[in-house]
Amino acid sequence: MIDLRSDTVTKPTEAMRRAVYEAEVGDDVYGEDPTVAKLEETAADLLGKEAALFVTSGTQGNQIAVLTHCVAGNEILLEEEAHIFYYEGAAISAFAGVQPRTIKGDRGAMKASRIEAAIRDAEDVHLPETGLICLENTHNRAGGAVVPIENMAELYAIAQKHDIPVHLDGARLFNAAVATQRPVRDFAQYTDTTQICLSKGLGAPVGSLIAGSHAFIKRARKWRKRLGGGLRQAGILAAPGLIALTQMVDRLQEDHDHAKKLADGIANIKGLQVANLVETNIVLVDVSERGWSSSDFVQRLEEQGILANSVGPTAIRMTTNYEVSSKDIDIVLSQLNRL
Amino acid sequence: MIDLRSDTVTKPTEAMRRAVYEAEVGDDVYGEDPTVAKLEETAADLLGKEAALFVTSGTQGNQIAVLTHCVAGNEILLEEEAHIFYYEGAAISAFAGVQPRTIKGDRGAMKASRIEAAIRDAEDVHLPETGLICLENTHNRAGGAVVPIENMAELYAIAQKHDIPVHLDGARLFNAAVATQRPVRDFAQYTDTTQICLSKGLGAPVGSLIAGSHAFIKRARKWRKRLGGGLRQAGILAAPGLIALTQMVDRLQEDHDHAKKLADGIANIKGLQVANLVETNIVLVDVSERGWSSSDFVQRLEEQGILANSVGPTAIRMTTNYEVSSKDIDIVLSQLNRL
Amino acid sequence: MIDLRSDTVTKPTEAMRRAVYEAEVGDDVYGEDPTVAKLEETAADLLGKEAALFVTSGTQGNQIAVLTHCVAGNEILLEEEAHIFYYEGAAISAFAGVQPRTIKGDRGAMKASRIEAAIRDAEDVHLPETGLICLENTHNRAGGAVVPIENMAELYAIAQKHDIPVHLDGARLFNAAVATQRPVRDFAQYTDTTQICLSKGLGAPVGSLIAGSHAFIKRARKWRKRLGGGLRQAGILAAPGLIALTQMVDRLQEDHDHAKKLADGIANIKGLQVANLVETNIVLVDVSERGWSSSDFVQRLEEQGILANSVGPTAIRMTTNYEVSSKDIDIVLSQLNRL
Amino acid sequence: MIDLRSDTVTKPTEAMRRAVYEAEVGDDVYGEDPTVAKLEETAADLLGKEAALFVTSGTQGNQIAVLTHCVAGNEILLEEEAHIFYYEGAAISAFAGVQPRTIKGDRGAMKASRIEAAIRDAEDVHLPETGLICLENTHNRAGGAVVPIENMAELYAIAQKHDIPVHLDGARLFNAAVATQRPVRDFAQYTDTTQICLSKGLGAPVGSLIAGSHAFIKRARKWRKRLGGGLRQAGILAAPGLIALTQMVDRLQEDHDHAKKLADGIANIKGLQVANLVETNIVLVDVSERGWSSSDFVQRLEEQGILANSVGPTAIRMTTNYEVSSKDIDIVLSQLNRL
Repeated sequence: MIDLRSDTVTKPTEAMRRAVYEAEVGDDVYGEDPTVAKLEETAADLLGKEAALFVTSGTQGNQIAVLTHCVAGNEILLEEEAHIFYYEGAAISAFAGVQPRTIKGDRGAMKASRIEAAIRDAEDVHLPETGLICLENTHNRAGGAVVPIENMAELYAIAQKHDIPVHLDGARLFNAAVATQRPVRDFAQYTDTTQICLSKGLGAPVGSLIAGSHAFIKRARKWRKRLGGGLRQAGILAAPGLIALTQMVDRLQEDHDHAKKLADGIANIKGLQVANLVETNIVLVDVSERGWSSSDFVQRLEEQGILANSVGPTAIRMTTNYEVSSKDIDIVLSQLNRL
Repeated sequence: MIDLRSDTVTKPTEAMRRAVYEAEVGDDVYGEDPTVAKLEETAADLLGKEAALFVTSGTQGNQIAVLTHCVAGNEILLEEEAHIFYYEGAAISAFAGVQPRTIKGDRGAMKASRIEAAIRDAEDVHLPETGLICLENTHNRAGGAVVPIENMAELYAIAQKHDIPVHLDGARLFNAAVATQRPVRDFAQYTDTTQICLSKGLGAPVGSLIAGSHAFIKRARKWRKRLGGGLRQAGILAAPGLIALTQMVDRLQEDHDHAKKLADGIANIKGLQVANLVETNIVLVDVSERGWSSSDFVQRLEEQGILANSVGPTAIRMTTNYEVSSKDIDIVLSQLNRL
Repeated sequence: MIDLRSDTVTKPTEAMRRAVYEAEVGDDVYGEDPTVAKLEETAADLLGKEAALFVTSGTQGNQIAVLTHCVAGNEILLEEEAHIFYYEGAAISAFAGVQPRTIKGDRGAMKASRIEAAIRDAEDVHLPETGLICLENTHNRAGGAVVPIENMAELYAIAQKHDIPVHLDGARLFNAAVATQRPVRDFAQYTDTTQICLSKGLGAPVGSLIAGSHAFIKRARKWRKRLGGGLRQAGILAAPGLIALTQMVDRLQEDHDHAKKLADGIANIKGLQVANLVETNIVLVDVSERGWSSSDFVQRLEEQGILANSVGPTAIRMTTNYEVSSKDIDIVLSQLNRL
Repeated sequence: MIDLRSDTVTKPTEAMRRAVYEAEVGDDVYGEDPTVAKLEETAADLLGKEAALFVTSGTQGNQIAVLTHCVAGNEILLEEEAHIFYYEGAAISAFAGVQPRTIKGDRGAMKASRIEAAIRDAEDVHLPETGLICLENTHNRAGGAVVPIENMAELYAIAQKHDIPVHLDGARLFNAAVATQRPVRDFAQYTDTTQICLSKGLGAPVGSLIAGSHAFIKRARKWRKRLGGGLRQAGILAAPGLIALTQMVDRLQEDHDHAKKLADGIANIKGLQVANLVETNIVLVDVSERGWSSSDFVQRLEEQGILANSVGPTAIRMTTNYEVSSKDIDIVLSQLNRL
């Protein structure tokens, strides 16, 4: 099976398994797990933030950001198909009591003028207070698009002018960093808090981090506990996470190369359309010309030993990852041709 | 002063005042206020519903609808500038814990295909359940536009297919009814619950009603109590409300005529643009060609004895109401010409 | 019928009806209703607070207090059978997301030591922050007991030491004031915010007020809007409310006298026990010795033309009010004797 | 250091580390982690439930139970010092919007009559609906007390009569099972859902399970995702969890023996009082006669190489666990004697 459903499906490497086996651990609820502490410091350093907090998933990191930055009755601004809005079960409203106001973006990037126009006048008794602006980079449903640093800088300036915090869902921020050859901190500088995932392209089994100021992280820690994310010997998860952060970043270039190769190949296959400009590890394919629904198409692929995701009525997503080789791409292309 | 800010500003008529003075009342928390009971029956009848509940405002009626139809973690579909989303302080998220998903409409009417595409697959663990579809008729921010009954019928069919309730924010439903010469029940038939306001064009001092099934109203009653809307001798408010429902509907035609006259006049004034197709009692005016912001313009008008609302950077709103006469419209036009 | 169920059942007086008829009104959402403004000033003055806000019920006033003082995840301290905890549909948790921690009181008064012991250490990641202390005076379920000012002073001192706001549910605060011959402001001085009801012993048809600092009231106004409590020509309700506040307070002494007379009479009736020390207008009666459930007993009374409330398996409540005369008490006693 | 703060502080055994190293894993969000599946089946079998769900902590399991059983505005019944109420940051109110109503228990066991008296009449518009009864066994703050199965049976009968679900916080249920020589399913039979922890006496590094019906677990899975508890290669945590469930239960008897020995020794030390009847692995000690605060006492102990927890102004808690030997208890007793 060639698994292109997501970069989350990869299994831990031998080095990660060994790291778990040997991990120095402690009770992290008491703040005594040295491996977690090291992971949090490493992440904070990479992102140029004062502190970081280990959480069990990107969703948890994002929810904690909203819970910590906002109070109920706030409105938050985010892109129309942002993960926080689209894929987190309306948890921002269920838990934090905030209302999302979505902005149509272009390849994940929202125009500064639209953001500014959407900020509410908190003095008006009819209107919620704008409590947070959320960005996502790379943008998942925009096909792994890189939101330009310049766009982030512009939005951050507006946010600061209006005294509104900015959170970055950086589940795939390392892909943006590798694609632009910029360190992740260059992106994170235009945010108050940034969430990064260890378990996507970086290959760790479980976990994410959220980074921000000391004051923010202190308050975030209590929200994490409420969400049930306060773990005991969490070094078990932090150990492979450290390998992910320190040894797995550069190889993302391979995933990007493979995705490029896949997209170029598909461009030459009749009846398939590459639906995104491939900048990182995600290829969106429109199968409508074939007259198939995306779910039918995904099933046919599965019968040929290839796993992909349906992400719309006629859209499928293929995500390269470290378990997919250049040869695998050849096989995929040949099967797509044959279908 | 000619007050065109809203149709909410009107003062109770002499008949309404007398009705309050003479109102038969009781403790409505015990269900013993005969005037409230009569008002609720009247509203239910008009809307073709089993029962109705008196509430203190349109916002309260809408919030009760969302609280009663939904549970936390649901997503609700509504138009991009619907009152429930735009002007109710994010209360749907703060109180009911639901996430709004907004759909761009055309003069307040949402395309059936867009609604259907936005309904979520509740089986997917990432996705919220679509818990409610909210309509608004007439649509306030679309300039009092009438959402066609045919559109409502189409949306209701989709909703029923997917087993999703439909709520209508009918704060100005009587304007839609008068504009189309259809009874309000023709609109309400394509909804599970409908909210109507007594205090807009109908001129009552305070109050709205929400109508639906007996089972719905029973549950709604408890949510009303939680919101603090359980009143004692509420007949004081229901009495003028009854006059509003039974004697004030037909005269809405005058407001519409006045709005039409106002819009026609403005169309001939250089530098002002009527920004909406005037179907009911709201006229939106774009003042950008004058080089003024809407708040500056509103202030100048006030100096001339005319009150209007700013509803965007260069947009103002004028709403006709029963305290504004045809002569007043002449005065307004002449002042606009002079400015 | 002699209605002793509650002091909420009374109908507006002729003076109140006339006041409504003549009320000067305006659109209170725009802050333009002069009668509401006058009522709010009057209430603020009486309570010694900077400002006050008209709300539609005691429940709404209390909910606004919790929503404005607290954020989700807070814990609030209040007496075990406080109205806010017992009779408001868990709205404090549903809307404000706070957890009540209840303290057993003695006739409604909580020991200072118990309050202090219950305050949480917010530094501990397992614990909620104590966000509010709520008092109730007189205490409804404690049988209209007056919480001594000295107790309030003591609790307020602790609250201030720990930087925790104090809210008083003063739905029947005027009863406490009359019973102790102290102005209401003497009680309110030991609170940050105080809610008072116009529609209980004071006889207005609808409404309450919440008083506090300017900053508090400004924020409270938005929460009121979210709850649907932003009204238009609310002077209709404020006008009788003004009469309640200015002309109806002193006569509460009669209600207290009647309650005393009722309790003294019941003390001499075999099989009935007065279950509270009657200080104000509430008499609790234990009917267990008669071998009847309270609901059976209430039904028998109703057949004799007397209405009372069941408030426990064998407990009934009789509340005197301005529609109940001394002669009525004689009748009630005679019927109780006969039963 | 002899660490008696909690049974959560223990480090994974060599067997657990090896199990992690060798764990067969998959993406559990896609339901493809075989080790997680095996752990969930094992737990469901042990508890006699249809299904189980792996969660990251006891708090998360409890929160999911409340979120899945209840809706906002419900009231839940639980013991006055239950972990869910006392130590979970008011998350039940912040997230699920439910109000706790606490019942004073006797060694963690609540009287059936008190529970029944506390169930609300949902027909009354003032009252919340009683949505859940929560039990805790063993009861942490009652000093690891075993709630008798008979008590659980009695409460469950009442719950079923009133159609209210029962959730058991069984973070230390295995201690109750070992102490009574009854299988855990004997306790779980009197519940609708049961949560058990892998990371307390059983020694796994991270994780808990919640078990119930298939329908419940399906809905719980979505709430877990919203909380950020949907993990990827969670077999990393499930592998040691399986060892905990299958190999670590019987040895809890040692912890109980050690706690008994510790308590017996303390009983002979002047100025210290054992404050609980020691049935399992927790010893509560009252240090008030020494004239020390608990935090001072805890600090002195730490200087002697012994870690304990302060759980009240003059109360400390010592919890035996598999890293504490019989010899360690001797040392602790000798140090306590010397202090």
